[in-house]
Amino acid sequence: MSYGLLKGKKGIIFGALNEQSIAWKVAERCHEEGAEFILSNAPIALRMGELNGLAEKTGSEVIGADATSVEDLEKLFDAAVAKYGKIDFILHSIGMSVNVRKGKHYTEMNYDWLEKGWDISAVSFHKVMRVAWEKDCMNEWGSILALTYIAAQRTFPDYNDMADNKAYLESITRSFGNYWGARKVRVNTISQSPTPTTAGSGVKGFGGFLGYADDMSPLGNATALDCANYCVSMFSDLTQKVTMQNLFHDGGFSNTGVSQKVVDKYDAESKNS
Amino acid sequence: MSYGLLKGKKGIIFGALNEQSIAWKVAERCHEEGAEFILSNAPIALRMGELNGLAEKTGSEVIGADATSVEDLEKLFDAAVAKYGKIDFILHSIGMSVNVRKGKHYTEMNYDWLEKGWDISAVSFHKVMRVAWEKDCMNEWGSILALTYIAAQRTFPDYNDMADNKAYLESITRSFGNYWGARKVRVNTISQSPTPTTAGSGVKGFGGFLGYADDMSPLGNATALDCANYCVSMFSDLTQKVTMQNLFHDGGFSNTGVSQKVVDKYDAESKNS
Amino acid sequence: MSYGLLKGKKGIIFGALNEQSIAWKVAERCHEEGAEFILSNAPIALRMGELNGLAEKTGSEVIGADATSVEDLEKLFDAAVAKYGKIDFILHSIGMSVNVRKGKHYTEMNYDWLEKGWDISAVSFHKVMRVAWEKDCMNEWGSILALTYIAAQRTFPDYNDMADNKAYLESITRSFGNYWGARKVRVNTISQSPTPTTAGSGVKGFGGFLGYADDMSPLGNATALDCANYCVSMFSDLTQKVTMQNLFHDGGFSNTGVSQKVVDKYDAESKNS
Amino acid sequence: MSYGLLKGKKGIIFGALNEQSIAWKVAERCHEEGAEFILSNAPIALRMGELNGLAEKTGSEVIGADATSVEDLEKLFDAAVAKYGKIDFILHSIGMSVNVRKGKHYTEMNYDWLEKGWDISAVSFHKVMRVAWEKDCMNEWGSILALTYIAAQRTFPDYNDMADNKAYLESITRSFGNYWGARKVRVNTISQSPTPTTAGSGVKGFGGFLGYADDMSPLGNATALDCANYCVSMFSDLTQKVTMQNLFHDGGFSNTGVSQKVVDKYDAESKNS
Repeated sequence: MSYGLLKGKKGIIFGALNEQSIAWKVAERCHEEGAEFILSNAPIALRMGELNGLAEKTGSEVIGADATSVEDLEKLFDAAVAKYGKIDFILHSIGMSVNVRKGKHYTEMNYDWLEKGWDISAVSFHKVMRVAWEKDCMNEWGSILALTYIAAQRTFPDYNDMADNKAYLESITRSFGNYWGARKVRVNTISQSPTPTTAGSGVKGFGGFLGYADDMSPLGNATALDCANYCVSMFSDLTQKVTMQNLFHDGGFSNTGVSQKVVDKYDAESKNS
Repeated sequence: MSYGLLKGKKGIIFGALNEQSIAWKVAERCHEEGAEFILSNAPIALRMGELNGLAEKTGSEVIGADATSVEDLEKLFDAAVAKYGKIDFILHSIGMSVNVRKGKHYTEMNYDWLEKGWDISAVSFHKVMRVAWEKDCMNEWGSILALTYIAAQRTFPDYNDMADNKAYLESITRSFGNYWGARKVRVNTISQSPTPTTAGSGVKGFGGFLGYADDMSPLGNATALDCANYCVSMFSDLTQKVTMQNLFHDGGFSNTGVSQKVVDKYDAESKNS
Repeated sequence: MSYGLLKGKKGIIFGALNEQSIAWKVAERCHEEGAEFILSNAPIALRMGELNGLAEKTGSEVIGADATSVEDLEKLFDAAVAKYGKIDFILHSIGMSVNVRKGKHYTEMNYDWLEKGWDISAVSFHKVMRVAWEKDCMNEWGSILALTYIAAQRTFPDYNDMADNKAYLESITRSFGNYWGARKVRVNTISQSPTPTTAGSGVKGFGGFLGYADDMSPLGNATALDCANYCVSMFSDLTQKVTMQNLFHDGGFSNTGVSQKVVDKYDAESKNS
Repeated sequence: MSYGLLKGKKGIIFGALNEQSIAWKVAERCHEEGAEFILSNAPIALRMGELNGLAEKTGSEVIGADATSVEDLEKLFDAAVAKYGKIDFILHSIGMSVNVRKGKHYTEMNYDWLEKGWDISAVSFHKVMRVAWEKDCMNEWGSILALTYIAAQRTFPDYNDMADNKAYLESITRSFGNYWGARKVRVNTISQSPTPTTAGSGVKGFGGFLGYADDMSPLGNATALDCANYCVSMFSDLTQKVTMQNLFHDGGFSNTGVSQKVVDKYDAESKNS
């Protein structure tokens, strides 16, 4: 697909790590649709160098920034302004929980790790928007997007403090989105199906859960490429009046109480046991 | 339990059929808490005569009324006014889908049956409140309740057009509740766990689903007696400022994405197959 | 704007009446994006003949159909199949409340009119999908959309039984959308800002309300053209995994508790009075 | 009112400061209903000594604890266990934003203050439950409650980072509530009308907003005493299967799109201007 939907648009894409990353697919699709952008990720994530391949392919520049550091973000946005003048879109695809990584149970949380995960996964979105706000560098009808997960609304085993981080992230979306309205900029989150990225796969029991989610979703799980397409529509001029929303992109999972597929497998096992 | 929470309060309870009925348990608990009330059900439901036992036990009168007939409802409310003057609470526990009963698939709906089920399950709640409104027979800080199910928000196999009826019922709750505010009366729905009543058990595959819902609910399914207790709290003076709400009473089902119990059984079966 | 987003796609658009209609704008935008479609409306709406101008401009055919008549819908879909083979999108922009038109208050509803408005505004969406389902005439990754309003979630003066109709419509979207998943078709509603169409303007006090909604929405009200653009994105291949959702397209109204603009004007009046 | 609803129940009430406090009213009502409890607040809040009056009146002990300090909380719970054995209920009525206090705009947030407010207003609820969890000191069918505000769902001017804190608090409620299910303990939040407490009044423009909220709520704003009554019902045995819910206690505000009262005043001002 290629429609020139983002022709002339400039942006910053945070969080591409490797080919499995949703942000990677978003970058590829934005490029196909005519956008130019800067790729950014934490310095440590850049060390592996995989991002350079994507940068070459899409004619982009890579600029490292720790998204929890206002100073780093200011340098990044200064570079963007120097290059593009104002910009049109931002993707925030950043999240990490130390408690999840280290297998700390929710009831036994380490609070320093909690604070770190909250800062990286949620507050960083405020920091990104705040720097963009202060530099007044978004064009009218620009679009700011972050990726989230339905654990912000309902509990899932092992998702741990990331659930609370995502709830905070979605709240920032509304709170800051409210102010961005005056500058004709929209801010939304996409609540994506579980996706086998490097980050997602780090959650315990992720593999089994993926199949469950697929069986619960009338259209099946949305893939990273599906998500990239949806992001393109949200960056395009077709969705200018959508703001402060959390948009479920999940094949219908969010509004499915239980599916026949799940009931059938579940009943079979109940009879076995 | 008995606290005298409803001492001096008068009401009408619609929909008790037999000992399994939620409305039956509500009547028993309201009686224990000191309330007086009229029991009402459709003439056809009264033929079996089971309700007389409950009436005796709770010192109540049984008055038949087709809840889709404004005329019948007027007679019923006239009798209530004659007996009590103004009343304090109403329970609407009425629902029936001809399409469900006759096993008609949602995609092949009979539209006459659809209209009938909608009238019985949803519009009847408007009619009940409208007659009460016209007769101006609710005391200040009175409480009107209807029972509903989470199928109004999410899809469940075989729940069929009852899902849409419940969505309409919940909307009536808000729409009419908005006007009742001026008379200091509150209107709410309780969204109850699946419950093995005569009506519930009529839904295909209900038995299996009951176990699934129980495994998905951190506190397990709420029983008919649990629901009766919750209704008592909503009729009492402790909840006067709660209105136009849909209150989930389901052991946590509504905010559980998936439980460990379900994942475990599900995974086991996935590996078997 | 024109991106060829809907090149090769065929559809049916219900509910265009005149230049103010959202469906009219959708037709214009779908045409610009390369789609072909049939325009349909109730026979009585066609008498004025305005739709012919739109048909000419967009190279479309007009086929009258009473959307509450399965027979009419079958003829319409037969004509679509004869012309296009399978189709890719459907827009349902149909709604009417006799109680609203005749100024009947919600507490004094005429129940025959209620039934008629429910059939036209909500059940018609089931009928449209059921005929499409039986004829198996949707292509994979087709998209079915209906327009709705936030009165389905919260009360607005004078919106009357349309609130309940919209709640029922949104429930049909989930219920039927669940089955369409198996055929890789998505079904969603767009919950649009109040829009000065012929239908909208019929609601009492609409003019004043429009300004209020605009002041409450960080991006201002979404116009009919904005809505048409959003519909295009939902018909395109960029949004294939979005289903069973109610998508707020309202400049942020739905997630604004109160705006500074409203507080300021409101406070000023409170001080005057 | 006094029904003996909480006879024999023991608890801990956090956050009573003075007679205006919701927690103060909750303590009074719990006492009237037969409960025994410990009153706790931050050491600095205890200095004024007002709480001693409440303690005397209700036969309670005051134990200071900084709710962000796990160590303090451990001492407090040890004292509770020493006194009561297991306990039955906990009220968390704790919240403070340094950014709000110091008039820092949301777009110009101080991130150290943000972290402090988040810790006090939201993480403290995790800490309270975690200490209770580790000490295994809740009786079966115990009830844990926190107070929240609708700013977690929709934006309000000047509510600032408290909106995001409340969203995080509500997420903790679901996340930890999920685990408490295994011990037959329920966890919920009550989303209360704006209330003229010391904390509430600290928000800029609070006075004007109070009137607006009252005009928007069909039953008017819920008072601190109303809230105390609702808390009693949630601590009682009548609500055992309600868990992981956010319960709106707001006279209908949450489901009111706009009220006639607000439209009228607003229109008047629009015409004046």
